[in-house]
Amino acid sequence: MYREQIKVLDCTIRDGGLINNHDFDRRFVRAVYKALSEAGVDYMEMGYKNSKELFSSKEYGLWKFCDDDEIRKIIDGIEPKTKISVMVDVGRVDIDEITPKSESHVDMIRTAAYVKDIDKAIFMANNFAEKGYETTINIMAISRDQGSELEEALHQIEQESKIGALYIVDSFGALYQEPVEHLVKQFRSIVKTKEVGFHGHNHQQLAFSNTIEAIIHGANYLDGTVYGIGRAAGNCPLELLIGFLKNPKFDIRPVLDLISHEFIPLRQKIEWGYIIPYAIAGMMNEHPRAAMELRKSSKKEDYRGFYESLVSTGLD
Amino acid sequence: MYREQIKVLDCTIRDGGLINNHDFDRRFVRAVYKALSEAGVDYMEMGYKNSKELFSSKEYGLWKFCDDDEIRKIIDGIEPKTKISVMVDVGRVDIDEITPKSESHVDMIRTAAYVKDIDKAIFMANNFAEKGYETTINIMAISRDQGSELEEALHQIEQESKIGALYIVDSFGALYQEPVEHLVKQFRSIVKTKEVGFHGHNHQQLAFSNTIEAIIHGANYLDGTVYGIGRAAGNCPLELLIGFLKNPKFDIRPVLDLISHEFIPLRQKIEWGYIIPYAIAGMMNEHPRAAMELRKSSKKEDYRGFYESLVSTGLD
Repeated sequence: MYREQIKVLDCTIRDGGLINNHDFDRRFVRAVYKALSEAGVDYMEMGYKNSKELFSSKEYGLWKFCDDDEIRKIIDGIEPKTKISVMVDVGRVDIDEITPKSESHVDMIRTAAYVKDIDKAIFMANNFAEKGYETTINIMAISRDQGSELEEALHQIEQESKIGALYIVDSFGALYQEPVEHLVKQFRSIVKTKEVGFHGHNHQQLAFSNTIEAIIHGANYLDGTVYGIGRAAGNCPLELLIGFLKNPKFDIRPVLDLISHEFIPLRQKIEWGYIIPYAIAGMMNEHPRAAMELRKSSKKEDYRGFYESLVSTGLD
Repeated sequence: MYREQIKVLDCTIRDGGLINNHDFDRRFVRAVYKALSEAGVDYMEMGYKNSKELFSSKEYGLWKFCDDDEIRKIIDGIEPKTKISVMVDVGRVDIDEITPKSESHVDMIRTAAYVKDIDKAIFMANNFAEKGYETTINIMAISRDQGSELEEALHQIEQESKIGALYIVDSFGALYQEPVEHLVKQFRSIVKTKEVGFHGHNHQQLAFSNTIEAIIHGANYLDGTVYGIGRAAGNCPLELLIGFLKNPKFDIRPVLDLISHEFIPLRQKIEWGYIIPYAIAGMMNEHPRAAMELRKSSKKEDYRGFYESLVSTGLD
């Protein structure tokens, strides 16, 4: 599938940071940046831009804050083919701390929001756009929010926002290909002047196929992570996405090396991937929070018990 | 997705047997049969019916041969909600050894064949049908054989065979959803009097989504395996398929228990699942043979080297 407008964004360090408190060391993050740049990946998302007034830098690693000086240490001396992205959550950032683009190494700021917070997200994203950044809004938990509120939010984004792309985020890994087709078509029919993006979660082994489905129906901003790392079951594996796109601008080999040398050892230390409680949460369209708690407990392999606990919650 | 005609076939012991020389012990196979029967799975495929003239019972486990007396030991005393299937390969079975259905515990015989062997497959499957069995033909390596020979084979099957279902087998895990859609439509348009089946391989994490795609376009015979066990990356995980189908005749809970108690420990001993060399083989539409060899060698994590070896083979 070759389409010139397609942009691939790697969020290995950002979404992967959700399973290690954003505490990747600088050597590791530099290795990722170097490989992505050699591979021709368009964007690398380093982490969140969170306010240090709200979160302690003792409790969280560098990539919860993405100080510009830290980003400089990562990219310094590496041929910069890959642009830098950071994410902000509505309510967790002090927008006055965001400097103009001309004073920053960051190229793009992505604002993550639920449908209910879309007013705030538009306000924030417009502020970042006025400061010179590329911007997106990423609508989270879309598998729960597909009614008239979503439709209204889409119209509002089309009319009021200055973003370059609007993302569909399947936070719960609950979508199959038919709802992805429906959503991409709906987004494109209303948000005509922006690109559409897709960020999948792999709870049911559908992140890659849903990304393909989004591509087929016209999404051009695509998220992946190296070896599928990310919260719970993780994300669309970047290596599969590059393999599918068959665009000569990408080279899969640096990513393969990165997996061999860094991600196989890392996977021994922290857990992500196809794990039954995450699959169950995905099937039931639930946040993976309860499954993540289960995996830290002595009942980590009690799948039937976990399934039954979700079924009975659903009956409340 | 509820459709009454849909049949789910579990081939855990048969396709899983390809990674342990068909050497599952009787206790394990009984545990699988009991769980599948409680879960309401329509068929369980126990293994291959191979000729002992061609293969030594010293080198292979029980499920390379599926003696009727061994099948009896598995099902004895368990409420038999699940029918029994065995597979035969063209050229590896003595069809005179197949007794009439009335003398066997087997309900269905599936004949696996490449397109080039379709004459022999029809002959064999008709012989089994005349003996009273349900029958299918499973066309292997379909990602390599999609030209006029396939079309001719489909016409021949429609006209000459007595099978109940014709399977699309993505042996190399190379198909994306668009080719699956094309193949199911092509099969249904030519083979109008038989059901269409789908057997996926998970090299690119697409076995489940391709099975969904096949369902959407009318395939009614669906293969899965417990926890996705099977050759190389394995197959469509049965638990995801049951979760998707949402048919009240299925109960996912016995399958969840089976994974907790049997498949988590087994996965520590034998390897299947998302493993980069299998993903590379899938991307390149290659048999996983070379990747399986690599995984037994000291270069098992040399993904770049493996990728480059396949690229240069392709240039021969």
